[in-house]
Amino acid sequence: MEYLENTPFDELKVGDSTTLVREVSEKDIELFAYISGDINPLHLNEEYAKTTQFGGRIAHGLFCALMLTTAVATKLPGPGSVYRGQEMKFHRPVRIGDTLTATLVIVEKKKRGHLIKIECAITNQNGETVFSGLSTAIAPTEKLRIEASKLPNVTIG
Amino acid sequence: MEYLENTPFDELKVGDSTTLVREVSEKDIELFAYISGDINPLHLNEEYAKTTQFGGRIAHGLFCALMLTTAVATKLPGPGSVYRGQEMKFHRPVRIGDTLTATLVIVEKKKRGHLIKIECAITNQNGETVFSGLSTAIAPTEKLRIEASKLPNVTIG
Repeated sequence: MEYLENTPFDELKVGDSTTLVREVSEKDIELFAYISGDINPLHLNEEYAKTTQFGGRIAHGLFCALMLTTAVATKLPGPGSVYRGQEMKFHRPVRIGDTLTATLVIVEKKKRGHLIKIECAITNQNGETVFSGLSTAIAPTEKLRIEASKLPNVTIG
Repeated sequence: MEYLENTPFDELKVGDSTTLVREVSEKDIELFAYISGDINPLHLNEEYAKTTQFGGRIAHGLFCALMLTTAVATKLPGPGSVYRGQEMKFHRPVRIGDTLTATLVIVEKKKRGHLIKIECAITNQNGETVFSGLSTAIAPTEKLRIEASKLPNVTIG
Protein backbone atom coordinates (compact mmCIF):
# COMPACT_ATOMS: atom_id res chain seq x y z
CA MET A 1 0.00 0.00 0.00
CA GLU A 2 1.28 3.44 -0.93
CA TYR A 3 1.06 6.37 1.46
CA LEU A 4 1.27 10.10 0.89
CA GLU A 5 2.80 12.25 3.60
CA ASN A 6 2.93 16.02 3.76
CA THR A 7 5.15 18.71 5.23
CA PRO A 8 2.91 21.11 7.16
CA PHE A 9 3.27 24.88 6.79
CA ASP A 10 5.29 25.38 9.99
CA GLU A 11 7.94 22.88 8.87
CA LEU A 12 8.27 24.21 5.31
CA LYS A 13 11.27 26.42 4.56
CA VAL A 14 12.05 28.70 1.66
CA GLY A 15 14.52 26.68 -0.38
CA ASP A 16 12.86 23.31 0.24
CA SER A 17 12.78 21.42 -3.03
CA THR A 18 11.70 18.24 -4.74
CA THR A 19 12.13 16.64 -8.15
CA LEU A 20 10.00 14.41 -10.31
CA VAL A 21 11.07 12.52 -13.43
CA ARG A 22 8.92 11.08 -16.21
CA GLU A 23 9.40 9.78 -19.71
CA VAL A 24 6.95 10.95 -22.36
CA SER A 25 5.25 8.17 -24.28
CA GLU A 26 2.99 8.13 -27.31
CA LYS A 27 0.22 6.90 -25.01
CA ASP A 28 0.67 10.03 -22.85
CA ILE A 29 0.09 12.32 -25.82
CA GLU A 30 -2.88 10.34 -27.09
CA LEU A 31 -4.49 10.34 -23.64
CA PHE A 32 -3.89 14.05 -23.29
CA ALA A 33 -5.65 14.62 -26.60
CA TYR A 34 -8.48 12.38 -25.47
CA ILE A 35 -9.04 14.02 -22.11
CA SER A 36 -8.68 17.59 -23.38
CA GLY A 37 -10.34 17.22 -26.77
CA ASP A 38 -7.32 19.00 -28.29
CA ILE A 39 -7.17 17.09 -31.57
CA ASN A 40 -4.62 19.34 -33.26
CA PRO A 41 -2.78 16.97 -35.66
CA LEU A 42 0.50 18.62 -34.58
CA HIS A 43 0.24 16.27 -31.60
CA LEU A 44 -1.35 13.24 -33.22
CA ASN A 45 -0.37 13.00 -36.88
CA GLU A 46 3.35 12.56 -37.65
CA GLU A 47 2.86 13.14 -41.37
CA TYR A 48 1.23 16.53 -40.82
CA ALA A 49 3.55 17.50 -37.95
CA LYS A 50 6.57 16.96 -40.23
CA THR A 51 5.33 19.80 -42.46
CA THR A 52 5.33 22.29 -39.56
CA GLN A 53 8.16 24.31 -37.99
CA PHE A 54 8.46 21.56 -35.36
CA GLY A 55 9.46 18.86 -37.85
CA GLY A 56 7.43 16.17 -36.08
CA ARG A 57 4.86 15.40 -33.39
CA ILE A 58 5.19 17.28 -30.12
CA ALA A 59 3.40 17.03 -26.78
CA HIS A 60 0.71 19.55 -25.86
CA GLY A 61 2.33 22.51 -24.04
CA LEU A 62 0.12 21.98 -21.04
CA PHE A 63 1.28 18.38 -20.73
CA CYS A 64 4.29 19.52 -18.68
CA ALA A 65 2.03 21.15 -16.13
CA LEU A 66 0.74 17.71 -15.13
CA MET A 67 4.03 17.11 -13.34
CA LEU A 68 3.44 20.14 -11.13
CA THR A 69 0.00 19.24 -9.84
CA THR A 70 1.41 15.84 -8.98
CA ALA A 71 4.49 17.21 -7.23
CA VAL A 72 2.46 19.70 -5.17
CA ALA A 73 -0.29 17.23 -4.26
CA THR A 74 1.90 14.29 -3.40
CA LYS A 75 5.34 15.65 -2.44
CA LEU A 76 5.76 19.38 -1.76
CA PRO A 77 3.92 20.14 0.49
CA GLY A 78 1.86 16.97 -0.19
CA PRO A 79 -1.69 15.97 0.83
CA GLY A 80 -3.89 18.66 2.30
CA SER A 81 -2.41 21.29 -0.05
CA VAL A 82 -4.88 23.39 -1.99
CA TYR A 83 -3.50 24.27 -5.42
CA ARG A 84 -4.56 27.87 -6.12
CA GLY A 85 -2.86 28.99 -9.28
CA GLN A 86 -0.14 28.51 -11.81
CA GLU A 87 1.85 30.73 -14.15
CA MET A 88 3.77 28.96 -16.87
CA LYS A 89 5.77 29.41 -20.02
CA PHE A 90 6.40 26.78 -22.67
CA HIS A 91 9.97 27.25 -23.91
CA ARG A 92 10.78 24.30 -26.15
CA PRO A 93 8.85 21.44 -27.73
CA VAL A 94 8.59 18.14 -25.86
CA ARG A 95 8.75 14.96 -27.93
CA ILE A 96 7.89 11.29 -27.49
CA GLY A 97 10.77 9.56 -25.71
CA ASP A 98 11.96 12.72 -23.91
CA THR A 99 12.83 12.31 -20.24
CA LEU A 100 11.57 15.29 -18.27
CA THR A 101 12.86 16.36 -14.88
CA ALA A 102 10.74 18.80 -12.91
CA THR A 103 12.43 20.71 -10.11
CA LEU A 104 10.27 22.59 -7.62
CA VAL A 105 11.62 25.02 -5.03
CA ILE A 106 9.69 26.98 -2.41
CA VAL A 107 10.50 30.66 -2.97
CA GLU A 108 7.97 32.36 -0.71
CA LYS A 109 6.02 31.57 2.46
CA LYS A 110 3.32 33.87 3.80
CA LYS A 111 1.96 33.27 7.29
CA ARG A 112 -1.29 34.95 6.31
CA GLY A 113 -3.40 32.31 4.61
CA HIS A 114 -0.53 29.79 4.77
CA LEU A 115 0.23 30.67 1.17
CA ILE A 116 3.36 29.35 -0.50
CA LYS A 117 4.87 30.04 -3.90
CA ILE A 118 6.85 27.36 -5.66
CA GLU A 119 9.13 28.01 -8.60
CA CYS A 120 9.24 25.18 -11.08
CA ALA A 121 11.36 24.35 -14.07
CA ILE A 122 11.26 21.32 -16.32
CA THR A 123 14.31 20.26 -18.33
CA ASN A 124 14.73 17.53 -20.90
CA GLN A 125 17.48 14.88 -21.18
CA ASN A 126 19.75 17.43 -22.89
CA GLY A 127 19.48 19.84 -19.98
CA GLU A 128 17.35 22.27 -22.00
CA THR A 129 14.56 24.07 -20.16
CA VAL A 130 11.25 23.19 -21.80
CA PHE A 131 8.94 24.75 -19.22
CA SER A 132 9.12 27.23 -16.36
CA GLY A 133 6.52 28.51 -13.96
CA LEU A 134 5.34 29.53 -10.54
CA SER A 135 2.78 27.56 -8.51
CA THR A 136 0.67 29.06 -5.74
CA ALA A 137 -0.79 26.80 -3.06
CA ILE A 138 -2.25 26.91 0.42
CA ALA A 139 -0.08 24.65 2.53
CA PRO A 140 -1.63 22.16 4.96
CA THR A 141 -1.36 23.16 8.62
CA GLU A 142 -1.50 19.65 10.04
CA LYS A 143 0.63 16.59 9.50
CA LEU A 144 -1.17 14.09 7.28
CA ARG A 145 -0.29 10.59 6.21
CA ILE A 146 -2.97 9.13 4.00
CA GLU A 147 -3.40 6.12 1.82
CA ALA A 148 -2.79 6.98 -1.83
CA SER A 149 -5.59 6.14 -4.21
CA LYS A 150 -4.95 3.38 -6.70
CA LEU A 151 -4.89 4.39 -10.34
CA PRO A 152 -7.44 2.78 -12.63
CA ASN A 153 -6.34 0.61 -15.55
CA VAL A 154 -6.54 2.55 -18.80
CA THR A 155 -6.31 1.04 -22.24
CA ILE A 156 -6.19 2.75 -25.62
CA GLY A 157 -7.51 1.55 -28.94
CA MET B 1 -14.53 13.95 -41.54
CA GLU B 2 -13.89 16.83 -39.15
CA TYR B 3 -11.86 19.87 -40.17
CA LEU B 4 -10.13 22.53 -38.14
CA GLU B 5 -9.94 26.04 -39.53
CA ASN B 6 -8.02 28.99 -38.15
CA THR B 7 -8.28 32.77 -38.12
CA PRO B 8 -4.88 34.15 -39.19
CA PHE B 9 -3.22 37.00 -37.29
CA ASP B 10 -4.28 39.73 -39.74
CA GLU B 11 -7.97 38.82 -39.40
CA LEU B 12 -7.97 38.56 -35.60
CA LYS B 13 -9.40 41.49 -33.68
CA VAL B 14 -9.19 42.46 -30.04
CA GLY B 15 -12.60 41.45 -28.70
CA ASP B 16 -12.92 38.29 -30.81
CA SER B 17 -14.24 35.53 -28.60
CA THR B 18 -15.25 31.91 -28.45
CA THR B 19 -16.86 29.57 -25.96
CA LEU B 20 -16.53 25.91 -25.15
CA VAL B 21 -18.81 23.81 -22.94
CA ARG B 22 -18.13 20.49 -21.27
CA GLU B 23 -19.64 18.36 -18.56
CA VAL B 24 -17.30 16.87 -15.96
CA SER B 25 -17.58 13.11 -15.56
CA GLU B 26 -16.07 10.67 -13.10
CA LYS B 27 -14.12 9.20 -16.02
CA ASP B 28 -12.57 12.64 -16.67
CA ILE B 29 -11.23 12.84 -13.14
CA GLU B 30 -9.94 9.28 -13.14
CA LEU B 31 -8.19 9.81 -16.46
CA PHE B 32 -6.66 13.05 -15.21
CA ALA B 33 -5.29 11.19 -12.19
CA TYR B 34 -3.96 8.47 -14.46
CA ILE B 35 -2.22 10.75 -16.94
CA SER B 36 -0.78 13.09 -14.30
CA GLY B 37 -0.01 10.58 -11.57
CA ASP B 38 -1.77 12.91 -9.11
CA ILE B 39 -3.31 10.24 -6.87
CA ASN B 40 -4.45 12.58 -4.14
CA PRO B 41 -7.54 10.84 -2.70
CA LEU B 42 -9.29 14.24 -2.61
CA HIS B 43 -9.96 13.56 -6.28
CA LEU B 44 -10.44 9.79 -6.22
CA ASN B 45 -11.82 8.67 -2.87
CA GLU B 46 -15.26 10.00 -1.90
CA GLU B 47 -15.00 8.68 1.65
CA TYR B 48 -11.76 10.56 2.29
CA ALA B 49 -12.85 13.67 0.39
CA LYS B 50 -15.94 13.95 2.62
CA THR B 51 -13.67 14.51 5.62
CA THR B 52 -12.00 17.55 3.98
CA GLN B 53 -13.09 21.18 3.73
CA PHE B 54 -14.50 20.35 0.26
CA GLY B 55 -17.07 17.86 1.56
CA GLY B 56 -16.59 15.49 -1.37
CA ARG B 57 -14.51 14.63 -4.43
CA ILE B 58 -13.39 17.51 -6.62
CA ALA B 59 -11.63 17.72 -9.96
CA HIS B 60 -7.91 18.54 -10.11
CA GLY B 61 -7.46 22.35 -10.37
CA LEU B 62 -5.55 22.00 -13.59
CA PHE B 63 -8.39 20.05 -15.17
CA CYS B 64 -10.05 23.32 -16.21
CA ALA B 65 -6.97 24.36 -18.15
CA LEU B 66 -7.62 21.51 -20.59
CA MET B 67 -10.47 23.54 -22.04
CA LEU B 68 -8.09 26.37 -22.91
CA THR B 69 -5.53 24.38 -24.86
CA THR B 70 -8.42 22.94 -26.84
CA ALA B 71 -10.04 26.30 -27.50
CA VAL B 72 -6.77 27.91 -28.62
CA ALA B 73 -5.66 24.97 -30.78
CA THR B 74 -8.97 24.28 -32.46
CA LYS B 75 -11.01 27.52 -32.38
CA LEU B 76 -9.30 30.81 -31.43
CA PRO B 77 -7.07 31.27 -33.39
CA GLY B 78 -7.11 27.54 -34.31
CA PRO B 79 -4.54 25.33 -36.06
CA GLY B 80 -1.07 26.75 -36.59
CA SER B 81 -1.21 28.56 -33.22
CA VAL B 82 1.73 28.04 -30.91
CA TYR B 83 0.62 28.06 -27.28
CA ARG B 84 3.34 29.89 -25.33
CA GLY B 85 2.14 30.36 -21.82
CA GLN B 86 -0.72 30.43 -19.37
CA GLU B 87 -1.50 32.18 -16.12
CA MET B 88 -4.39 30.80 -14.11
CA LYS B 89 -6.20 30.93 -10.83
CA PHE B 90 -8.46 28.25 -9.40
CA HIS B 91 -11.33 30.00 -7.66
CA ARG B 92 -13.85 27.32 -6.72
CA PRO B 93 -13.96 23.53 -6.65
CA VAL B 94 -15.27 21.68 -9.71
CA ARG B 95 -17.34 18.56 -9.09
CA ILE B 96 -18.52 15.54 -11.06
CA GLY B 97 -21.64 16.51 -13.01
CA ASP B 98 -20.74 20.21 -13.24
CA THR B 99 -21.23 21.85 -16.63
CA LEU B 100 -18.35 24.19 -17.37
CA THR B 101 -18.46 27.04 -19.85
CA ALA B 102 -15.14 28.52 -20.93
CA THR B 103 -15.20 31.98 -22.50
CA LEU B 104 -12.09 33.22 -24.28
CA VAL B 105 -11.61 36.80 -25.48
CA ILE B 106 -8.62 38.28 -27.32
CA VAL B 107 -7.42 41.23 -25.24
CA GLU B 108 -4.11 42.07 -26.91
CA LYS B 109 -2.51 41.71 -30.33
CA LYS B 110 1.15 42.53 -30.97
CA LYS B 111 2.41 42.76 -34.54
CA ARG B 112 5.90 41.91 -33.36
CA GLY B 113 6.05 38.12 -33.13
CA HIS B 114 2.30 37.86 -33.94
CA LEU B 115 1.70 37.45 -30.23
CA ILE B 116 -1.83 37.46 -28.87
CA LYS B 117 -3.15 37.41 -25.32
CA ILE B 118 -6.44 35.75 -24.55
CA GLU B 119 -8.38 36.28 -21.35
CA CYS B 120 -10.27 33.21 -20.22
CA ALA B 121 -12.86 32.53 -17.57
CA ILE B 122 -14.68 29.31 -16.76
CA THR B 123 -18.02 29.33 -14.99
CA ASN B 124 -20.14 26.48 -13.68
CA GLN B 125 -23.87 25.86 -14.17
CA ASN B 126 -24.63 28.28 -11.31
CA GLY B 127 -22.78 31.10 -13.01
CA GLU B 128 -19.95 30.97 -10.47
CA THR B 129 -16.43 31.57 -11.76
CA VAL B 130 -14.32 28.51 -11.03
CA PHE B 131 -11.24 29.46 -13.05
CA SER B 132 -9.72 32.56 -14.62
CA GLY B 133 -6.57 33.10 -16.61
CA LEU B 134 -4.62 34.62 -19.44
CA SER B 135 -3.27 32.60 -22.38
CA THR B 136 -0.37 33.71 -24.56
CA ALA B 137 -0.01 32.32 -28.07
CA ILE B 138 1.70 33.03 -31.37
CA ALA B 139 -1.07 33.35 -33.93
CA PRO B 140 -0.79 31.64 -37.31
CA THR B 141 -0.03 33.99 -40.21
CA GLU B 142 -1.62 31.86 -42.92
CA LYS B 143 -5.09 30.49 -43.40
CA LEU B 144 -5.18 26.79 -42.59
CA ARG B 145 -7.91 24.20 -42.94
CA ILE B 146 -6.69 20.81 -41.85
CA GLU B 147 -8.21 17.45 -41.12
CA ALA B 148 -8.70 16.97 -37.39
CA SER B 149 -7.09 13.89 -35.93
CA LYS B 150 -9.41 11.18 -34.69
CA LEU B 151 -9.38 10.50 -30.99
CA PRO B 152 -8.39 7.00 -29.87
CA ASN B 153 -10.84 4.82 -27.94
CA VAL B 154 -10.03 4.87 -24.26
CA THR B 155 -11.43 2.47 -21.68
CA ILE B 156 -11.03 2.47 -17.93
CA GLY B 157 -10.94 -0.49 -15.56
